[in-house]
Amino acid sequence: MKVDCKLLLKEELQLIESALKCHQISQHPFINEVSEYVLFAGGKRVRPLLCVLSAKALNSFLPESLYEVAILFEYLHVATLLHDDVVDEAEFRRGRRSARRLWGNQATILVGDYLYAKALRIASALKNPEIMEVITRTTLLMSEGEVLQLLHLDDTEVSEEAYREIIYRKTAALISCACEVGALLAGNSDREVSSLAKFGYHLGLAFQMIDDLLDYTSLETGKDLGKDFAEGKITLPVILALNRATPKEREELIYLLKKKNTTGEDFQRAYFLIDKNEGFILTHKMAEEEIRHAKTALKELKDSPYREALYYLAEYLLNRRK
Amino acid sequence: MKVDCKLLLKEELQLIESALKCHQISQHPFINEVSEYVLFAGGKRVRPLLCVLSAKALNSFLPESLYEVAILFEYLHVATLLHDDVVDEAEFRRGRRSARRLWGNQATILVGDYLYAKALRIASALKNPEIMEVITRTTLLMSEGEVLQLLHLDDTEVSEEAYREIIYRKTAALISCACEVGALLAGNSDREVSSLAKFGYHLGLAFQMIDDLLDYTSLETGKDLGKDFAEGKITLPVILALNRATPKEREELIYLLKKKNTTGEDFQRAYFLIDKNEGFILTHKMAEEEIRHAKTALKELKDSPYREALYYLAEYLLNRRK
Repeated sequence: MKVDCKLLLKEELQLIESALKCHQISQHPFINEVSEYVLFAGGKRVRPLLCVLSAKALNSFLPESLYEVAILFEYLHVATLLHDDVVDEAEFRRGRRSARRLWGNQATILVGDYLYAKALRIASALKNPEIMEVITRTTLLMSEGEVLQLLHLDDTEVSEEAYREIIYRKTAALISCACEVGALLAGNSDREVSSLAKFGYHLGLAFQMIDDLLDYTSLETGKDLGKDFAEGKITLPVILALNRATPKEREELIYLLKKKNTTGEDFQRAYFLIDKNEGFILTHKMAEEEIRHAKTALKELKDSPYREALYYLAEYLLNRRK
Repeated sequence: MKVDCKLLLKEELQLIESALKCHQISQHPFINEVSEYVLFAGGKRVRPLLCVLSAKALNSFLPESLYEVAILFEYLHVATLLHDDVVDEAEFRRGRRSARRLWGNQATILVGDYLYAKALRIASALKNPEIMEVITRTTLLMSEGEVLQLLHLDDTEVSEEAYREIIYRKTAALISCACEVGALLAGNSDREVSSLAKFGYHLGLAFQMIDDLLDYTSLETGKDLGKDFAEGKITLPVILALNRATPKEREELIYLLKKKNTTGEDFQRAYFLIDKNEGFILTHKMAEEEIRHAKTALKELKDSPYREALYYLAEYLLNRRK
């Protein structure tokens, strides 16, 4: 069976987009205004999409309400972005002014809280303790990851291992949760549910690795170019380069990362040092490895167009350019 | 039956305190450090106490684990305090330096998120969809209330009605939720559950009204004296005074509230204007009225030492001086 994955994904994305548009966030125009600004800012909808595809890969006869549940993952994601913007003192997000710049830190924190509460409200309406358990476990991990990231943000001694622990909590946990909840909605066996959770876990790790890579290598990512660099964030490309660099290069790269008010020239030099020490190529290789594990987890599922679409999406996220 | 309510409350508070001390918040010392700083800063434990008393008023044979559940309401409360501190740019909280001043806004926001997630994690472990429904409904109302408060913070046209809507969401909803969840844990009839929810609702309104009153009249409240005044917050004493003031007094009071960098003299003058126009006495009367409604709701329950303690607590909260 040859599946047109691109078309299938396009259709699912349209359904998700229309569920997002139809769903009333709040009765208060201000909450809606801030929420919609960040919700409709060009997000890729990866998390709701994974939830829907995971559910349909197990059971293609699911009610329309699946989409209303799937969007809770976009709400959770956007809630963390709002708080991140305040924490990072971001001026821009996806090429537009950040919410905090338009409405201030106060409203940004509180609307973030609101969207988080809204997501849990949608989840609790399912009256499914197992789903609630997965989601609250995940939100706890996520907030833990945010704190850990804050603490290790500029720690040049941070290990590959510690980096994985952070991105697991920060990114992979929610992506895995979206897949797992999708599987639970389809009401399938434990084996299939845990296969999809595992798929999401590896996909999520790869997703964040590629994100960290693109922060250096993409010119169109919509974020400020070299945002992580400007903030002195120690991400995987840096960690891997530091591990291989000569003592002198190491010292220089650390100096550049710790420097305040970095210039374009500083960025170019850091880029050169990371590239020379294979930070980028090795990051991509590690992401590839995660995608391989993700795909292996899918083998446990029966063949279907939706499983094909999950394979395709994994490949797409690995090779994306923004 | 003569019940020693004071002793009963003292014993229950000790059990709550030890549950708070024994419960591991996180495996990460930093999260524990920030959390414990705010958790053990002299809070009155009103919310866990109400949860425990509500449960025991319906069923005195409840497992020890009741206390582990009750503390989730303190976690939720403290999570909102942490975000409030950032939103209000507070320097002090309960007479000590605020968490944001010690650890910065970033950590304060993120540990607030963590405690919120932790509270929901405790709730979800009960695997009781009804309890989860009540809690997520409440957290949504709370975050809505915070946004509304931000929008109407300095609106001198705000009505008594709008004020009630805000304090319902901001304070009464969680207090009512603590009572309702206590009742649900005792596994009792809908009638009793809704009586206790109603009790908490009226008690919560009174609690916030008294809080707003004490912000003007207490010298020992532990907050900066006249914090609401300094921030230009329009609370019930002000609303009621503005309603009765002459046009000239109205103008002056509004001027004082909108003024930046207010002095002790400004505060004294505002106090005088509110007092002269019965803002304080009428606020207390309105709180009394709510406490009356709260007590009426308790009549639905069978007589017990715990019901007596709830009566006593309501009276105590109305007449507290800090």
